[in-house]
Amino acid sequence: MIIIGERINGMFKDIAQAIKDRNPAAVEEWARKQEYNGAHYLDINVGPSSSEPVEAMKWLVEVTQNVSNLPLCLDSTKYDAIEAGLKVCKQPAMINSVPAEAAKMERVFTMAAEYGAEVICLAMNEEGIPKDADSRVALAAELVANADAYGISPDMLYIDPLALPCNVAQDHGPEVMRTLREIKLISDPAPKTTVGLSNISQGTKNRELLNRTFAVMAMSNGLDSAIADACDDELMAAVASARIILNMDIYCDSYVDVFKQRNR
Amino acid sequence: MIIIGERINGMFKDIAQAIKDRNPAAVEEWARKQEYNGAHYLDINVGPSSSEPVEAMKWLVEVTQNVSNLPLCLDSTKYDAIEAGLKVCKQPAMINSVPAEAAKMERVFTMAAEYGAEVICLAMNEEGIPKDADSRVALAAELVANADAYGISPDMLYIDPLALPCNVAQDHGPEVMRTLREIKLISDPAPKTTVGLSNISQGTKNRELLNRTFAVMAMSNGLDSAIADACDDELMAAVASARIILNMDIYCDSYVDVFKQRNR
Repeated sequence: MIIIGERINGMFKDIAQAIKDRNPAAVEEWARKQEYNGAHYLDINVGPSSSEPVEAMKWLVEVTQNVSNLPLCLDSTKYDAIEAGLKVCKQPAMINSVPAEAAKMERVFTMAAEYGAEVICLAMNEEGIPKDADSRVALAAELVANADAYGISPDMLYIDPLALPCNVAQDHGPEVMRTLREIKLISDPAPKTTVGLSNISQGTKNRELLNRTFAVMAMSNGLDSAIADACDDELMAAVASARIILNMDIYCDSYVDVFKQRNR
Repeated sequence: MIIIGERINGMFKDIAQAIKDRNPAAVEEWARKQEYNGAHYLDINVGPSSSEPVEAMKWLVEVTQNVSNLPLCLDSTKYDAIEAGLKVCKQPAMINSVPAEAAKMERVFTMAAEYGAEVICLAMNEEGIPKDADSRVALAAELVANADAYGISPDMLYIDPLALPCNVAQDHGPEVMRTLREIKLISDPAPKTTVGLSNISQGTKNRELLNRTFAVMAMSNGLDSAIADACDDELMAAVASARIILNMDIYCDSYVDVFKQRNR
């Protein structure tokens, strides 16, 4: 499973302060730490409070690239900020994210085609997040068809079925599992899939337990990646075990340790 | 998920000794302990070394019933021992197990019909355990059809797709997941499913981690029950979390604790 490290995000106080002061220390530390713990991409999000998201994104990307060679996942609802980030990325990045809304798809897929970027696509539109798997899959198909019009292959897309917190929208859980399986039937090559892992446990007790349980359940239904806490050792051990069970890595006695020492 | 507590088994030294000495203490202790920890059935197995399996099974059943009201899962390759156990069971039991072999199905399904017992059915026959999901599902269908001839409804059967140790037969893992999903399409009502959970981790490091990871992955593909260590707290917490994610139990902050305090 592809782990997109979630920690360089202005929603966290230390990153918000780093952006404000243009002090790279905290950003560099989290870039190194997440890479060391097995992240394959680093999510870059200036946070909701940044007053100058375009400049902040550019700065975060540059600082992160100074200490890590991992590809970046540019995370913003402000597409100008994403474009500014794409311009300074040293290697193809991932765009996070676009819903199935015409104007947004046009803006994002145009950028993605120009910069060779992968795209996280949300199975939602102006009407919100659907309740059932069928409607989510229909939105996923719409996203795949739209991307195709820009010459973007389905395997450049990571469809996020949108898992909701299990304490308020518990009936979505089984629908998300089914959505993950059915997304793989949309096209050949199939789109990839992702989730914002911590969403499932927002506001609950036992957050890490719910996160890692959901992660491996979703993997057995076709989940390819997750925006997640790469420094959660128990999550990473569960993911390493799931990869063994799904025959994606060869078993060896030290597989949990080995998992940390290499990419993907 | 239905947990069939694995611990009253002559393969464990304390139970073997208890049987030999006809000393009920260890059996009673494990019966109570497994029930307290959330087991829904208790597996009863006299072990491979018992010289008088029929008498030993009868004794084990009686001792266990003295301290626990849980239904029992009579586990033996010696069908005379199972029949002796069925005769003294105070409530309908589960028979563990029968493969898709004509003579054995005749013997076991006859008993099951007579005593109203559920049956664990192994997706294997004289030729061994198939490598792929399709052959496993074919054997499951054969077992369902045979049971039907004895008037046994498919939902009285627990099909075991037979998970093999991931350090020697790793390619079986994804096939087992697919088998679990497809078994549910065989009949209406669908057969139930089970696994001997610890099989997946025989001879590996990180046994408990592999067991609980496999358990929740399999649950998200339709696993209904497992013969497992009910006293493995992390397993039981993972299973409780998976039930929340699959919307099988209502979320509450103390769901992990609540899980232990009730049956199924």
